[in-house]
Amino acid sequence: MTSLAMIEAAAARLQGRARLTPLLNAPLLDRIAGRRIFVKAECLQWTGSFKFRGGWSAVSALPEAARARGVLAFSSGNHAQGVALAAARHRAPAVIVMPSDAPAVKIGNTRAYGAEVVLYDRATEDREAIGAELAEGRGLTLIRPYDEPQVIAGQGTVGLEIAAQAAEAGISGADVITCCGGGGLTAGIALALEARAPALRVRPAEPEGFDDTARSLAAGTRVRNAAAAGSVCDAIVTPMPGEITFPILQRLCGPGLAVSDEQALHAVALAFTHLRIVVEPGGAVALAAALFAEGLPDTVICTASGGNVDPAVFAGALARFG
Amino acid sequence: MTSLAMIEAAAARLQGRARLTPLLNAPLLDRIAGRRIFVKAECLQWTGSFKFRGGWSAVSALPEAARARGVLAFSSGNHAQGVALAAARHRAPAVIVMPSDAPAVKIGNTRAYGAEVVLYDRATEDREAIGAELAEGRGLTLIRPYDEPQVIAGQGTVGLEIAAQAAEAGISGADVITCCGGGGLTAGIALALEARAPALRVRPAEPEGFDDTARSLAAGTRVRNAAAAGSVCDAIVTPMPGEITFPILQRLCGPGLAVSDEQALHAVALAFTHLRIVVEPGGAVALAAALFAEGLPDTVICTASGGNVDPAVFAGALARFG
Repeated sequence: MTSLAMIEAAAARLQGRARLTPLLNAPLLDRIAGRRIFVKAECLQWTGSFKFRGGWSAVSALPEAARARGVLAFSSGNHAQGVALAAARHRAPAVIVMPSDAPAVKIGNTRAYGAEVVLYDRATEDREAIGAELAEGRGLTLIRPYDEPQVIAGQGTVGLEIAAQAAEAGISGADVITCCGGGGLTAGIALALEARAPALRVRPAEPEGFDDTARSLAAGTRVRNAAAAGSVCDAIVTPMPGEITFPILQRLCGPGLAVSDEQALHAVALAFTHLRIVVEPGGAVALAAALFAEGLPDTVICTASGGNVDPAVFAGALARFG
Repeated sequence: MTSLAMIEAAAARLQGRARLTPLLNAPLLDRIAGRRIFVKAECLQWTGSFKFRGGWSAVSALPEAARARGVLAFSSGNHAQGVALAAARHRAPAVIVMPSDAPAVKIGNTRAYGAEVVLYDRATEDREAIGAELAEGRGLTLIRPYDEPQVIAGQGTVGLEIAAQAAEAGISGADVITCCGGGGLTAGIALALEARAPALRVRPAEPEGFDDTARSLAAGTRVRNAAAAGSVCDAIVTPMPGEITFPILQRLCGPGLAVSDEQALHAVALAFTHLRIVVEPGGAVALAAALFAEGLPDTVICTASGGNVDPAVFAGALARFG
């Protein structure tokens, strides 16, 4: 179970290894929203998303012998790259099991960070079986993307930074909207803020149709999405909240928010124009909620959690909303 | 004449008012370049460029009575927005004289920051005459974009930050490549580094065909560009080096570098992919030089000096090089 002490220990291990990302804002963006919006720009993190923090936290927490044998991850995107670079910097072997139809650039980047990529066919092969065989045969340690206490601790360092940066900016109370897939980032931030900035309330944001967390929070129990894919916000489409993350969210978070793909793409374009950052659609759902949701307070902090986006998708967002 | 003391005083006035922008890098970008590249991301500055620093420095240095009467600037772009927001935050009136064919978004933003925009026809009207009449009639103080000691001092705060961030990153020696128009940023950084990090040598970068600074440095005297316009790097196309800035550059800078429009657009796309920042072509010439120039050292720091770019130009860069 992730505790504040674990998050602080992860922060110490990440010191000088992860980037302290800026908390951005812009007067003209505030005018559009009708409220003050601060954006925690994790797209500027190493490998282009907060996932590097969790990857580093988990790899660095392993006993030396296990680290030397290597790590394993399943991911088609940001977790793959985060674990790959974290492992490479520790000189630990990394095997990333990726679907063969993942974007070529993500496969290429994961390899470029030094990982061994094992491709599988989504339709005919079982990635769990492939992973289990690799883990068994080579003694690799599996690093789960969110249901893993040390990963949650790493993502929680975003919350420690938000608490400090909000205090520096004179923010005394705010909603903190997070881009939420399995809930690792949301849970980590919520735990950090509970201790360091209890006046900041966390609210998870998701794509419409994939708002399993919002519905689970409302239902008081984990519920599943009807569809498995079909949003432009691919990075945060998960089947249901995590087993470890959900109880944390249930205890600490306010109601979830859902945004349309349109709103996410609009937020991508506004972040381009007013903040000059590159955010992927799934990394822009929190900003979209901050801009377009009803009933928010005067001040909102949101995560821009990743920036690994296909150039054509980005150009499309600019053409429609830029 | 701008001194280190003036730069330090500007830094004190800018404390908490300008953003301390991050020094970004990315392993995959280094691999492409074959050297370590660090990018000072001034596109993340308020108003999207370093110009806000010089604007704030100049406005805040005015005697109170002069500030209350207001300030005047000529600019079609980043200086306009920087001065407009700096004046608004001081509750000082600002009049910005802009060509009527300036991009609508830049005129709109300058107005949105609270400035009064006076449009003139480039072909038939004399902006100096318009400005002189306004200044005379309303007692406005003209803030020049680079030949103004307090503006140079403001831009020099970028150099103070680079010195501190380079030390933190363990960089002991490097070339510091700047995007150079009239030379305000370059002169300010050079003065700051002379005092704080003498092992970092400044080299100005410009678009091919508009490399007046490089040719002036080589000739030992200020020379003029043949053309007045015609580069995609519009933000840094100036007729010749400044009267005040050039002697500083002559004393402190290494040889200038010139890049093609192609290379600048390629750098825009690589900054998108690997750094997840939005850089305008004129703000990417230093990164282009860092990536593509011959004979550079193993470690290069460059400015990404602005990010106010037309969405179609940006999408075009991604389509070609993304």
